[in-house]
Amino acid sequence: MAAEDKADGRDEETQTAAPSPAPRSPTAARRLIREGLFDGPTGALAPGQVQAALAAVPAEAALAFAAFCLRNPKALPLLAMTLPGERRCPALGADVDLARDLPAYRVIEDGGVAGEVADAADLWRDDLTGFLIGTGHALDAAFAEAGLALRHRSESHPPPLFETNVPMEAAGRFSGRLWVGMRPFSPSDAVRAIEISGRYPMAHGAPVHMGEPSAIGLDRLTTPDLNPPSRVAGGETPLFWASSRSAEPALLAAGLDFALVSPPGKLLVTDLQTERARGF
Amino acid sequence: MAAEDKADGRDEETQTAAPSPAPRSPTAARRLIREGLFDGPTGALAPGQVQAALAAVPAEAALAFAAFCLRNPKALPLLAMTLPGERRCPALGADVDLARDLPAYRVIEDGGVAGEVADAADLWRDDLTGFLIGTGHALDAAFAEAGLALRHRSESHPPPLFETNVPMEAAGRFSGRLWVGMRPFSPSDAVRAIEISGRYPMAHGAPVHMGEPSAIGLDRLTTPDLNPPSRVAGGETPLFWASSRSAEPALLAAGLDFALVSPPGKLLVTDLQTERARGF
Repeated sequence: MAAEDKADGRDEETQTAAPSPAPRSPTAARRLIREGLFDGPTGALAPGQVQAALAAVPAEAALAFAAFCLRNPKALPLLAMTLPGERRCPALGADVDLARDLPAYRVIEDGGVAGEVADAADLWRDDLTGFLIGTGHALDAAFAEAGLALRHRSESHPPPLFETNVPMEAAGRFSGRLWVGMRPFSPSDAVRAIEISGRYPMAHGAPVHMGEPSAIGLDRLTTPDLNPPSRVAGGETPLFWASSRSAEPALLAAGLDFALVSPPGKLLVTDLQTERARGF
Repeated sequence: MAAEDKADGRDEETQTAAPSPAPRSPTAARRLIREGLFDGPTGALAPGQVQAALAAVPAEAALAFAAFCLRNPKALPLLAMTLPGERRCPALGADVDLARDLPAYRVIEDGGVAGEVADAADLWRDDLTGFLIGTGHALDAAFAEAGLALRHRSESHPPPLFETNVPMEAAGRFSGRLWVGMRPFSPSDAVRAIEISGRYPMAHGAPVHMGEPSAIGLDRLTTPDLNPPSRVAGGETPLFWASSRSAEPALLAAGLDFALVSPPGKLLVTDLQTERARGF
């Protein structure tokens, strides 16, 4: 699968180790990160590729987390999972090493965030099970390709994220409230954004809400829980998409002795092209 | 979710226990089966509803089976999964009891088929984990709705199934060869069938092959491995869709001490409407 998805000749950038200009092939992007030459947000790397969030949980909690993802497919669409002891993930790239190929790893210990590391090879326990979760990265790529102007891009930041009062479907020890990302659009663009995103179930699909923020428990849009706010202009409608950020609070609340999760925006660059976020 | 998906007033059939005419609501269909009044193939029950195959495996093998499904999404699209001890599956119907709501259960013991039972309540172990897998039932519904003539329907049997020589992606102890269902179409109808099925990833999506059967290891189309053959008329092309029948051989080869699997065509009638097989 990886070989088919890789465009011909895209690997030429792997010849150069220089971090600038940004690598265009996913292999080059992962290598740069693996070698410790890049530790920032992955948004600008390898345009057109699906980027995945990571949650790695101990085997004893993994079955429940798999069910949690399946029961909340808009927030946590499962692109791939590994079995305990597997750090490779060939479905997302032949060379992928889950413990090293993300720019940063948030370390969860005894139900709290213990810190962040740039490389998790020394922390990766034999019983860790990796879940690779689709993100809004492919959504923004699809919107841009369709010519839709994205407010957060013109404002040079990621979409503002909010914790709603909408409960997720629980599975075993995992539960929590849904996080959403907000993108404002004019009515005609909102219709197109809904149409387009509906075709990408592996990138959160259609919005979970549009319009009145209070309907999902949000007081105001000017104070997101994460990332800077996006201006909503007169006549525009705020659209809310489920966010893979929903994973971290659920991992924390589950009281796991240990887990790893990707920090927001610091994702695995995969060999899957955006088109594949339409589903398999 | 179940409540939203249920069309208004469809439950009126639940007032009658008579097996004839065939119940139109999924609740009525499940009740009939649960009460032992129906044990045949579910194809004609509750038109327009997604029907799911069941695989129930012990918890110790469940994580690997979840990964096996995710790695082979065309054959084994996961509609839902339960955790050990859960027989209910509210995502597919508020009243669903996985141990009683299928017309039959094939019992796997020590790597072989030990027999079939009409009710698995006495066999359902506390460590059993249920996987509900999308089937071609929704595909046929979508084809019929689009006005495509289905050969196997005019021949009054399910689609012929074949074991190919195509290896599935392994996960832990699970591996095996892909099974496919064949439907012949004229070239123009074949194009439409590919277009339409591609929109239903939870019902096997687009075909895995079209044309020359030998390319996927099939000698002839006149001797399917399961179900009667379908005639391929002059000028028609055989199209091959991945089949949820791929699960059973993989369960057998895994050498499990115990598992349950739905016999072909004897499926769980769910509250999901066909439209939902497009993905979530």
